[in-house]
Amino acid sequence: MDDTELHERLANLEERLRLLEDREDIRRLICSWGPACDIGNSEAAAALWTDDGVLVSDMSRLEGPAGVRAMVESDGQQALIRQGCAHVQGLPVINVTGDDAVATNYSSVFLHTEDGGYETWRVSGNNWAFRRTAGGWRVTRRTAYAINGESEARDLLARALEPEPSSRS
Amino acid sequence: MDDTELHERLANLEERLRLLEDREDIRRLICSWGPACDIGNSEAAAALWTDDGVLVSDMSRLEGPAGVRAMVESDGQQALIRQGCAHVQGLPVINVTGDDAVATNYSSVFLHTEDGGYETWRVSGNNWAFRRTAGGWRVTRRTAYAINGESEARDLLARALEPEPSSRS
Amino acid sequence: MDDTELHERLANLEERLRLLEDREDIRRLICSWGPACDIGNSEAAAALWTDDGVLVSDMSRLEGPAGVRAMVESDGQQALIRQGCAHVQGLPVINVTGDDAVATNYSSVFLHTEDGGYETWRVSGNNWAFRRTAGGWRVTRRTAYAINGESEARDLLARALEPEPSSRS
Repeated sequence: MDDTELHERLANLEERLRLLEDREDIRRLICSWGPACDIGNSEAAAALWTDDGVLVSDMSRLEGPAGVRAMVESDGQQALIRQGCAHVQGLPVINVTGDDAVATNYSSVFLHTEDGGYETWRVSGNNWAFRRTAGGWRVTRRTAYAINGESEARDLLARALEPEPSSRS
Repeated sequence: MDDTELHERLANLEERLRLLEDREDIRRLICSWGPACDIGNSEAAAALWTDDGVLVSDMSRLEGPAGVRAMVESDGQQALIRQGCAHVQGLPVINVTGDDAVATNYSSVFLHTEDGGYETWRVSGNNWAFRRTAGGWRVTRRTAYAINGESEARDLLARALEPEPSSRS
Repeated sequence: MDDTELHERLANLEERLRLLEDREDIRRLICSWGPACDIGNSEAAAALWTDDGVLVSDMSRLEGPAGVRAMVESDGQQALIRQGCAHVQGLPVINVTGDDAVATNYSSVFLHTEDGGYETWRVSGNNWAFRRTAGGWRVTRRTAYAINGESEARDLLARALEPEPSSRS
């Protein structure tokens, strides 16, 4: 094998592996949100976001790590934690383009009820945007709207159907 | 390192990476179904299937992309979309064998209710079969039966327990 | 490229690929539990565990493959199977350290109801521990507590927020 071919094969492997690792990191980031909220770890929840990160939903608009921290520490979220809540993320469709990425998924919030069962409190469509930072991937924007027949959630879910960036050889 | 060893190590890496990429592509395909149905994008839903693809369930049998398109455009599915519906796919067990693959998972359909909450309308066991085409992986067959105590869903879920093809060194 | 650089790049690729494969194997193991329980395949359920494996929950403590087998064959579990039950695992956060691994996720159990719908019977926080054996990854310990406002489930979910081992270059 000549050196040019060897270089190309190694570089190709490294690039493709990096893409798979990026997706793994992003899944981990998405799956860290629920536990941080459901145990009330406001610092961990805030640390998932960039300084200019925004969480937009039909319930609120949270600005930056400070906005996220305040939400987790709010009376409303603390009441959900005492009741027993589970913010469960569905499997995301992820598109990575260099140091930026987007993801689309469903999410559900289950609440423990007085009779010992669970109600499905919210089911949402989500778009996420991420940026690669020196400390790893962080969330720059999450938009989440309840699936209730209105168009907002459908507009978010539509992005799961966009073609994958042609990052693979 | 002699050239034979180098070739073997590179080929081994390339084969194993390809398998991981195949599984990623198949997860993406599975996760595209829900959004296509829930926003009513019948073209996108149809495009996930091979020309000879079949979707068999306890509710219907859809033949090919045309059958899928007609289902998404049907009055029944349009009514679910107006109500607010979420077809959520669980994490699949995937077996790839060359240009064919199968997957087994759970899926749930949540419907928005008049009181602003959600009901779990269906929970199903699923088998999927896929074929690698020039345009990427496509679904050749999905079989989905509601988990209701009858044997059909159990027969589908049983395939999650079959041994993985020995594609890894 | 000199031989030292080549060796390093190949070894780095092989190590990173192995880590991704380990996570795939562990996801598969986690996703095999539900089908084994829900179809009543007690042998398959037992085979997921090491000989010293333990399943601790707020409902029971199962010791080893024999304990797991007995649970699946119990009257209680057989009644759930006849009713229609789905043990659905959420996307896990996985940390691999050599031949050991841990994972944290949510899980839900849906039960078919007499009116043809489904109730969410349990939503739990889970920690899993795994060991690499000659036959592949096996579960050494799973701890699962219902999310009900008590601290046990929160203590389990907190482990999703622990930093990833620095296994990547």
